[in-house]
Amino acid sequence: MKKIINNPIDFVDETLDGLIKSHPKVYSLASDNSRVITRAIKSSNKVGLVTGGGSGHLPVFTGYVGKGLLDSCAIGSVFASPSVEQIASAIRNANNEKGVLCILGNYGGDVMNFEMACEIVKEEGIETKTVIVADDIASAKVNEKDKRRGIAGMIFVFKVAGALAERGASLEDIYKIASDTNSNVRTLGVALSPCILPEAGKPTFEINKDEIEIGMGIHGEPGISREKLKSANDLTDDICKRILDDFNLSNQEVGLMVNSLGATPLEELYIISRRVVENFNNHKISIFKNYVGRYATSMEMAGMSITVLKLNNKIKENLIAPTDCPFWTN
Amino acid sequence: MKKIINNPIDFVDETLDGLIKSHPKVYSLASDNSRVITRAIKSSNKVGLVTGGGSGHLPVFTGYVGKGLLDSCAIGSVFASPSVEQIASAIRNANNEKGVLCILGNYGGDVMNFEMACEIVKEEGIETKTVIVADDIASAKVNEKDKRRGIAGMIFVFKVAGALAERGASLEDIYKIASDTNSNVRTLGVALSPCILPEAGKPTFEINKDEIEIGMGIHGEPGISREKLKSANDLTDDICKRILDDFNLSNQEVGLMVNSLGATPLEELYIISRRVVENFNNHKISIFKNYVGRYATSMEMAGMSITVLKLNNKIKENLIAPTDCPFWTN
Repeated sequence: MKKIINNPIDFVDETLDGLIKSHPKVYSLASDNSRVITRAIKSSNKVGLVTGGGSGHLPVFTGYVGKGLLDSCAIGSVFASPSVEQIASAIRNANNEKGVLCILGNYGGDVMNFEMACEIVKEEGIETKTVIVADDIASAKVNEKDKRRGIAGMIFVFKVAGALAERGASLEDIYKIASDTNSNVRTLGVALSPCILPEAGKPTFEINKDEIEIGMGIHGEPGISREKLKSANDLTDDICKRILDDFNLSNQEVGLMVNSLGATPLEELYIISRRVVENFNNHKISIFKNYVGRYATSMEMAGMSITVLKLNNKIKENLIAPTDCPFWTN
Repeated sequence: MKKIINNPIDFVDETLDGLIKSHPKVYSLASDNSRVITRAIKSSNKVGLVTGGGSGHLPVFTGYVGKGLLDSCAIGSVFASPSVEQIASAIRNANNEKGVLCILGNYGGDVMNFEMACEIVKEEGIETKTVIVADDIASAKVNEKDKRRGIAGMIFVFKVAGALAERGASLEDIYKIASDTNSNVRTLGVALSPCILPEAGKPTFEINKDEIEIGMGIHGEPGISREKLKSANDLTDDICKRILDDFNLSNQEVGLMVNSLGATPLEELYIISRRVVENFNNHKISIFKNYVGRYATSMEMAGMSITVLKLNNKIKENLIAPTDCPFWTN
């Protein structure tokens, strides 16, 4: 295990401490919980936006705290849900008495703990609503979309809801746009190699040297097809076809995200992105903006995902609204 | 070799085509050379800024073309210098009859080809000046600083010179600030694992599973010390000590860059950055801004580098000036 770390037990806390020490004008540790990150300059007079989830996916989740994005984040251990108390603290820290919207990925532990945390803060007079992002088309059929896992598409929901919240919208309106964005987003990924959990010291899964797995989850959840490694064009065509079979996008305008799971370099992402653009052009899908980089990762895992967000004017204007966050280029 | 690519021969051209197709409002291919990237909207009435170098280091080099940064870039094959004709084309494409500043890393082939290209365009009436960035403290002693290789420190030179050029400064003034920035920057890196060249299909170097190499170059050039893997804190302390022995920064204000060579994830970078901040605090060095991410890579190589830029007011104001580039967060 060749990682630049200290004691694996300290991996998460040292990462968070580093994040805050590196960007003290953006991030701050909550005064009441060492696994809750808030904005350095707290918002006032706006709906609070909260997320939470396991560590090991930077910039997801906590990197997207910042002006124009989220207010706070509850952070679990590597690939593990944050606790109910951590989530309740994140909600309290985001609360400006205008309500709080929770946006999380569809994972059992996260969903359950967020539900319980929302019940606790309700007793304290904090109104919450929750949007559970379910964008991974590999994880359930389209007629059971709500059962899908949440992956990179989450970031588009953070961004669109975050921008609208910053402009002073109501909890109801932000919940609506976050729900619409969630309905409008699809992701499919492919894994080439595992990552190693710092405390366990072993790979999350095994895969042959000439194999890939389409649709594997970011924690190594089983995908839909284990195949021989094929060319970038063939792989991209396959993924685009699966997405477009799931979701009719002809003559639509979309936001695109070509995301590395970690080790896969930008050069490969651009070879993939090139082919996505060609596929979409052939289907008369217009790409409004293309985000190519590492947005949702599994540490040093090799692989990538392609996310498509169907746009309307309201989603579009919030997608490109300014942010103050080290992980979002305006 | 588990890469998402097509024919390895097409690796560079497909990467560039993908870059342009993904960000058509930022990048464009020069009309006269398929290995020259220019801004999509060319500048006018300002000094042109040009760089060039081998592929395989994205965002270096061509990613830093954009408003507030560079005007054009000549791109060689993977880890290979661009040709004289490619560089001459990049200079012509950046020329607005106010002179052109070339900023490149200190590698023999690049330096030689830029020199010859500058001679060719001089015959055409284009005035050029050149700054050769030499920031890698592992590659020569401090009394031979000019012999050092150029690595991540280059990006600070691009950014500072690019901002001043955008404001309409003269070639002489931009050359001065780029030279000052080059004098004020130091980098030291560590390699954990090699990358694989697409066409060769084999690793750039061999290293044992429990070893690291301090000061190894981004093409696998020999470093200063091959050692057993140690803790993030010990490694960071060692690198900080070597930088601070080279360069007295006590009571100075600096810009910091903690850069992944590719596979090393953000979590590890923040564990490292945390320790750099602690080291610098102990030396009464004030960190004005900290850039943590993948700024200069070697594809999927694991490892990282730490870059320090000593600031003055002029460098500082240009460092934080706005840009329009997918790889620079303002």
